[in-house]
Amino acid sequence: MKLYGYWRSSCSWRVRIGLFWKNQPFTYQAVHLLKDGGQQKLEPFTSLNPMQSVPVLELEDEGHTHLLSQSMAILEYLEERWPEPPLLPKGRIARARVRQAAEIINSGIQPYQNTSVQKRVKHELRGDEKAWARHFIAHGLQALEPLLKTTAGRYSVGDQVSLADCLLVPQLYHARRYELDTAAFPTLTRVETACAALPAFQAAHADRQPDAET
Amino acid sequence: MKLYGYWRSSCSWRVRIGLFWKNQPFTYQAVHLLKDGGQQKLEPFTSLNPMQSVPVLELEDEGHTHLLSQSMAILEYLEERWPEPPLLPKGRIARARVRQAAEIINSGIQPYQNTSVQKRVKHELRGDEKAWARHFIAHGLQALEPLLKTTAGRYSVGDQVSLADCLLVPQLYHARRYELDTAAFPTLTRVETACAALPAFQAAHADRQPDAET
Repeated sequence: MKLYGYWRSSCSWRVRIGLFWKNQPFTYQAVHLLKDGGQQKLEPFTSLNPMQSVPVLELEDEGHTHLLSQSMAILEYLEERWPEPPLLPKGRIARARVRQAAEIINSGIQPYQNTSVQKRVKHELRGDEKAWARHFIAHGLQALEPLLKTTAGRYSVGDQVSLADCLLVPQLYHARRYELDTAAFPTLTRVETACAALPAFQAAHADRQPDAET
Repeated sequence: MKLYGYWRSSCSWRVRIGLFWKNQPFTYQAVHLLKDGGQQKLEPFTSLNPMQSVPVLELEDEGHTHLLSQSMAILEYLEERWPEPPLLPKGRIARARVRQAAEIINSGIQPYQNTSVQKRVKHELRGDEKAWARHFIAHGLQALEPLLKTTAGRYSVGDQVSLADCLLVPQLYHARRYELDTAAFPTLTRVETACAALPAFQAAHADRQPDAET
């Protein structure tokens, strides 16, 4: 498999965690989201994904090559293709809780912090793009903290790593990047610490990628 | 089951389609997203969902009452609990295509058109909130059209109704609401027309809900 991503993109990071967790080898193709006005908006990448966003996973299945985008869709695919070790629990309600937590981040936080939106806030609306992102990250994490307080064991939902953890860890990194004090989220940061001890999460970390900048 | 929603909320609408498609009875509790500064931000609703967003589905399972939020998580739950009639195809790649299309709307378009974001663009940034929404709807649908052109049969992915259709139909309604010409999306509008012939999609339509306004 080949993963098109960017070291700091939280959506790319989620998929890296999933791939390392499932012990699936992949090559990494960096797409620089800032250079040249954003390489995701230029050929050859834009033909691979007209949404002009990372990640994109190139893979072989059912006798063909496929390009999959959208991190949640990719993670669900990885789970269906390589069920072990799992990223979803067995119970129906527990699975719903995992997806609910993941979607609070996926659709309720991350869309507001992504690069193209920040640019739009700054250049079109002449707004403070960092304050914009911080507002939505704070709102989402404030909702997630009481929710995970009722579901978390060692990880976000119970004692088993799940999709929710794949989304939570990169999101907390970005919370700090936008200067949000994460001390207000003791459950979330406790889960983050537990994840940080796992090799898959270590290998997937933004700072460990070949395109990482200091 | 009890669904907390708002007639025009596309996320509520998606779940209504899912419930009607699965032939599952539910009562409907309207939460007015504009009245009183947004009833979703007030008690009693905000205790039900600290994200202060609709839909929320109240249901019984595994011997308990649960409150589920996040439309994608709810739809996946409905699919797991009542697999027939399905909202996901059998093939692994087809399922990934359905989720990819759904997520382009769920995380790539809808977050930018929702009420609280529009308010923030208008009042905090003094921007044109309708132009803001229109930009993101156009960008997303322009990416979705070529994708669905390769996957669509009668519906978004093949000839079977799926999650992708549950998201597409409300999104096209909002595209028109923001004065986007949908003639540029012949595949999307063809699928929409096919869906409009189905009783579940008719019953779920915004204009058919008890809290609909003219």
